[in-house]
Amino acid sequence: MFSFANDYSEGACPKVLSALIQTNNVQCTGYGLDIFCQSAADIIKKTLEHDDIDVHFITGGTPCNVVAISTLRAHEAVIAVESGHINVHETGAVEAAGHKIITVKGRNGKITPDEIRKVVAANPDEHSVKPKMVFISNATEFGTIYKKQELADIYSVCKELDLYLYLDGARLGNALVATGNDLSFKDICDLADMFYIGGTKNGGLIGEAMVIKNDALKEDFRYLIKQHCSMLAKGRLIGVQFIAMLEDKTYLDNARNANIMAQALKYIFVQYGIPMYIDSPTNQIFPVLDNKLLEKIKTSYEITEWGPYDEDHTICRFVCSWATKKSDIQDFYNDLVTYVN
Amino acid sequence: MFSFANDYSEGACPKVLSALIQTNNVQCTGYGLDIFCQSAADIIKKTLEHDDIDVHFITGGTPCNVVAISTLRAHEAVIAVESGHINVHETGAVEAAGHKIITVKGRNGKITPDEIRKVVAANPDEHSVKPKMVFISNATEFGTIYKKQELADIYSVCKELDLYLYLDGARLGNALVATGNDLSFKDICDLADMFYIGGTKNGGLIGEAMVIKNDALKEDFRYLIKQHCSMLAKGRLIGVQFIAMLEDKTYLDNARNANIMAQALKYIFVQYGIPMYIDSPTNQIFPVLDNKLLEKIKTSYEITEWGPYDEDHTICRFVCSWATKKSDIQDFYNDLVTYVN
Amino acid sequence: MFSFANDYSEGACPKVLSALIQTNNVQCTGYGLDIFCQSAADIIKKTLEHDDIDVHFITGGTPCNVVAISTLRAHEAVIAVESGHINVHETGAVEAAGHKIITVKGRNGKITPDEIRKVVAANPDEHSVKPKMVFISNATEFGTIYKKQELADIYSVCKELDLYLYLDGARLGNALVATGNDLSFKDICDLADMFYIGGTKNGGLIGEAMVIKNDALKEDFRYLIKQHCSMLAKGRLIGVQFIAMLEDKTYLDNARNANIMAQALKYIFVQYGIPMYIDSPTNQIFPVLDNKLLEKIKTSYEITEWGPYDEDHTICRFVCSWATKKSDIQDFYNDLVTYVN
Amino acid sequence: MFSFANDYSEGACPKVLSALIQTNNVQCTGYGLDIFCQSAADIIKKTLEHDDIDVHFITGGTPCNVVAISTLRAHEAVIAVESGHINVHETGAVEAAGHKIITVKGRNGKITPDEIRKVVAANPDEHSVKPKMVFISNATEFGTIYKKQELADIYSVCKELDLYLYLDGARLGNALVATGNDLSFKDICDLADMFYIGGTKNGGLIGEAMVIKNDALKEDFRYLIKQHCSMLAKGRLIGVQFIAMLEDKTYLDNARNANIMAQALKYIFVQYGIPMYIDSPTNQIFPVLDNKLLEKIKTSYEITEWGPYDEDHTICRFVCSWATKKSDIQDFYNDLVTYVN
Repeated sequence: MFSFANDYSEGACPKVLSALIQTNNVQCTGYGLDIFCQSAADIIKKTLEHDDIDVHFITGGTPCNVVAISTLRAHEAVIAVESGHINVHETGAVEAAGHKIITVKGRNGKITPDEIRKVVAANPDEHSVKPKMVFISNATEFGTIYKKQELADIYSVCKELDLYLYLDGARLGNALVATGNDLSFKDICDLADMFYIGGTKNGGLIGEAMVIKNDALKEDFRYLIKQHCSMLAKGRLIGVQFIAMLEDKTYLDNARNANIMAQALKYIFVQYGIPMYIDSPTNQIFPVLDNKLLEKIKTSYEITEWGPYDEDHTICRFVCSWATKKSDIQDFYNDLVTYVN
Repeated sequence: MFSFANDYSEGACPKVLSALIQTNNVQCTGYGLDIFCQSAADIIKKTLEHDDIDVHFITGGTPCNVVAISTLRAHEAVIAVESGHINVHETGAVEAAGHKIITVKGRNGKITPDEIRKVVAANPDEHSVKPKMVFISNATEFGTIYKKQELADIYSVCKELDLYLYLDGARLGNALVATGNDLSFKDICDLADMFYIGGTKNGGLIGEAMVIKNDALKEDFRYLIKQHCSMLAKGRLIGVQFIAMLEDKTYLDNARNANIMAQALKYIFVQYGIPMYIDSPTNQIFPVLDNKLLEKIKTSYEITEWGPYDEDHTICRFVCSWATKKSDIQDFYNDLVTYVN
Repeated sequence: MFSFANDYSEGACPKVLSALIQTNNVQCTGYGLDIFCQSAADIIKKTLEHDDIDVHFITGGTPCNVVAISTLRAHEAVIAVESGHINVHETGAVEAAGHKIITVKGRNGKITPDEIRKVVAANPDEHSVKPKMVFISNATEFGTIYKKQELADIYSVCKELDLYLYLDGARLGNALVATGNDLSFKDICDLADMFYIGGTKNGGLIGEAMVIKNDALKEDFRYLIKQHCSMLAKGRLIGVQFIAMLEDKTYLDNARNANIMAQALKYIFVQYGIPMYIDSPTNQIFPVLDNKLLEKIKTSYEITEWGPYDEDHTICRFVCSWATKKSDIQDFYNDLVTYVN
Repeated sequence: MFSFANDYSEGACPKVLSALIQTNNVQCTGYGLDIFCQSAADIIKKTLEHDDIDVHFITGGTPCNVVAISTLRAHEAVIAVESGHINVHETGAVEAAGHKIITVKGRNGKITPDEIRKVVAANPDEHSVKPKMVFISNATEFGTIYKKQELADIYSVCKELDLYLYLDGARLGNALVATGNDLSFKDICDLADMFYIGGTKNGGLIGEAMVIKNDALKEDFRYLIKQHCSMLAKGRLIGVQFIAMLEDKTYLDNARNANIMAQALKYIFVQYGIPMYIDSPTNQIFPVLDNKLLEKIKTSYEITEWGPYDEDHTICRFVCSWATKKSDIQDFYNDLVTYVN
């Protein structure tokens, strides 16, 4: 049984694992105040070409989102597309922290400036929550990516309407190396108030790097990390990993491998006339599979059934990672040939 | 300036006011444990033809909804139509109490069994919240009403899927006396796990009566009322009012007056070719007004602009109450004639 | 059975009731934005001799406290004495709103500047909450009052340590007319960031008046009132009452009657050698009663048993109100003579 | 600079690190549903000699406590000693999850049955929270341990009063191997409703093992883990570590080394006439140091200043871990000789 179920099926990529081994016996101050985290923060500042940012290391993606949104006041709300991770796959963690998520339809997993404007217009006074933050993901939950102009337009409407723009970068690497992407690390920081650089889904063992550019969001942020169960005693672990991934090209290389393998998989499906539910240039693809074929695939592969397409077809998700090998794709191709015939 | 803005523009209806005056000097135990509240609870049991229910008196509608939903465990969620009061007009109070609202489109402000099924199917495991309660309003936020079969079908799917059915009865009186209604007080109690009988919007000064039929929801309910700022020190006030309204036909008479006056208003609009955004048989109507006409009306009337219909028209809300008089409608008719010509 | 159990056993004082009757049929905008609330706010500004304050009308005491504390950020905490109402008699409403209460012993129900300093010193970083507000009551939960110098010292240490001082004025009238008091309405506003003027316990039917002096606490306060179930649809009710109580001496007269009657009661107890658990100059007194005598008293009087004093004695609470008459005290005296002999 | 600041200054103990390396490339299902976590759960059942328990793997100690307490209903509260970790070092995370902590003094960091009884008696109705859980730590935050009879008495009063007993086992290993301990792993499970076996502070890299014995606490527990940001995508990491630590004597050996080293340190202090603030038999010791000596120590050692003892002395905390070597203690001894003379 081989798994295309997600990009966190394996442990750490070799460079990260090696860094963890090498630094294992060094004594460090706890809770992310150690020299590795400091050094990782410096590397991130250089990577982003932004000096005046705060960097924090947090245990996971949901933790990042909850902590980021808990910077808001009690009555302030976050706007997101319906498919946004905070809305569908975080067990109501944002609401448990007291904040409403106002959802909009979106298009291909992406929010539009016009949708943001409409939400603000529809929530004018104290009988509704006060929209104060926009949540986006890049890559999105459908694997799609924001173009630079799209992000600039969203950021611009946020500034006009006094909203924070927060970007979930669980798969930021996959977005930045995708075919068609025109955003750089620096652009992300230019065009968002706060975002995180995903580690777990891109070859890290655990942990993400939160970046805060907007000064209004910086104060007492560590209190929020601790209060929301998202601070690691051995915080050095996350710092060590981000050094390993970002001091050279490892981070982007991991993402690139994941994308290339997923796109190869897509090509195989398309060859066999299997359509994609949505066209994604990153490491998640969404083929619409005939249910009979699906059953055959499931005998040897773990994948995710995203939802029914029609009575006879299912939208599926295949994910590749830093660890996916060409031979894995080749094996799948060989199996598919058998299944289809 | 006359107000059709809502049904709580005036104080109490005469019978309620008189009861408050008469009982003013009686000494009572605080917090709803007094003889008036006990007596009101007895009258409610008789009205509903249900003995084995708990009755609590709560300060208002949003408080009722928040307290009702806070019976859920932390990870359990409530399903509601997008236009549901808890979703749009309670300042995120439900989310502030930690619970997610999962919204569905609905039809004319009403939820369908199929929508409920789909939500449950889409939230199968611990990565999402667990749907556990369905929230409906009768009359709905659009003034529409549930037919007996519709309510029975919803209740049935709730029981099948292990969901509580909670009914917001802010305007329950208006529903029960509406043309086309086939539900009785007893039916409501038969077909819901918990609901409240609205007082504030039907001639009361303050307060609503929460009814809990499902035993699983009864334990420690008073703790939740207190914790959510919804218990009155002088709780007797609400008991006194519900006695006054329910010991005879006052409650339904108040609602009937409100409905009749609103329907008369609707008839006037229709006569002038002004369409309704949605057809409501209760005390709220939603004419689509030409913006020029709207401006004229606003010179003498306070009403609610519900939202833009198109560039030249606005969906408006006119509400009548126990206090609206035939002469008020006649005056409006006379003014409308002038405005239109 | 006569009740000394609390100061909210009766309805409204005559002047308040009369005002409610007179204004009952006036149409008003809802939610506290009406002309009566505006007028009441003006009277309060004049009473306090402060123009640059915000005034809001809220349903009750616990609601006031919860809303006030919910101005804090998620990780900020409030300091209070152990006997503080928010700590013992609000069903964890403050914690339900997400905030920790850090308790100190206090002295006679009052906090000291030194205790505040120690809490701040003991909570220096993000592993603890951040103390940000001090909660006090005047009169306190033990009926004691703050002297002007005490309040000035507390306010001063709050300003030094960047803490907000919030005062629960459920029985503010009783404090201001107590023997030994040297604080005026204006002093309270000079020496606190936010406080409320209690209505419910001083002759009102329902509702309190929140006063915000500190600009940092003013923004979006109405959202917090709504979100915490503390806004009244017929908000005009509270405005009307505060006009009635504060446009002349009614408010202070009500409080004075309550104090005088309670002090007369105290005098009776002391005459019979019954000690007070704590010496209170306001409308609550705390006699330590022999359990046999207590049983006799309870045959004709409802009072509150505050807790055991020793095996044979119980700390009791007797409360008088605007409604307590000289004859009530005389009757009790006559009964006590019988019980004791 | 050598650190006695805590027991999580280093990475993983050799056996854990080795297990992580060996399993790194195995593909696993995410979120703790993998074969390693299942296998670790089996080992834990065997270790505890309890089959009918649920085992969950959680990111850290504060997360464990928050998730455990969030099994309570909204109005239910937890009782803890003032020095309890949840009360002083978790940034109000429990309150942020909506629950009040009712504190008692305790003795040497331990709660007494009598204190529990008093809290329940003092919170009899809906004006207070409802005490429903008792929180204890073993070893405690002062390094002390519960004797079997003490724990049995506490558990017994909990059962009598319908309270859950929850035990924070961040340093459970240190307790179980301490001189004077008479509790076994099995006893802990016999005498608590829920507890966690600490990993992070006993040689793990990250993660703790939550054990639920009481059926009433088992339902939907994974929802609570996810909602409180405490579930790891690569959940296998924690499973792998607990296998490594518990399949043989590693877990207890790690703890034993930590205790022995700390006790050796204590012996050195006592030799020099330096008293302990509290006598602990585990891996944390609390010497009361002269401030001048403290300054000297701080030139070469990182330790924790627990708080002032008097003007000239400070209560300090020294912690040893699985990684502390005899030579570290010898070095400290040599340095102390110099400092003192």
